[in-house]
Amino acid sequence: MSKLSPAEAEIALKEVSGWILAGDGLSIQKTFKFGDFNEAFGFMTRVALKADKMDHHPEWFNVYNKVEMTLTTHDVGGVSQKDIKLAAFADDAAG
Amino acid sequence: MSKLSPAEAEIALKEVSGWILAGDGLSIQKTFKFGDFNEAFGFMTRVALKADKMDHHPEWFNVYNKVEMTLTTHDVGGVSQKDIKLAAFADDAAG
Repeated sequence: MSKLSPAEAEIALKEVSGWILAGDGLSIQKTFKFGDFNEAFGFMTRVALKADKMDHHPEWFNVYNKVEMTLTTHDVGGVSQKDIKLAAFADDAAG
Repeated sequence: MSKLSPAEAEIALKEVSGWILAGDGLSIQKTFKFGDFNEAFGFMTRVALKADKMDHHPEWFNVYNKVEMTLTTHDVGGVSQKDIKLAAFADDAAG
């Protein structure tokens, strides 16, 4: 697992939907919106199970129907393919 | 359900453990720490089920084993007994 340069990360982000590279190039971020809290937390639960299996955990903030998610790979000090993989899973889970 | 004054909120906070009144007096906050992500998200799941049943939802941020929780009652524009009740549940859920 190696660190993606900002240029490599931008290319990798074409595989997912609506994720942006943070200004410092060290993480990717997306805000998900759902119909209500039940849907938002259902999404979080699906992502949590996947994240724990990958041993790759998000930073996330939830209020009611909104989930702000940040992904970074501490082992490489920036963005890696693990983040892209979890981002793609989150996109699918959001439906 | 009525809004608690900062003085009333401080008295009510004696019923729970480790919660503080925000500087503006409009919310209560606590940071929970667990052994790992699995424990942290297990806690969040228990609180989420209770919150949805109460129709009273937290604002919360999670990274790995840490959960920062903020409770406020939008209907009264500040802290109410609903926040104290959910805070007490969260304390129990954290064990």
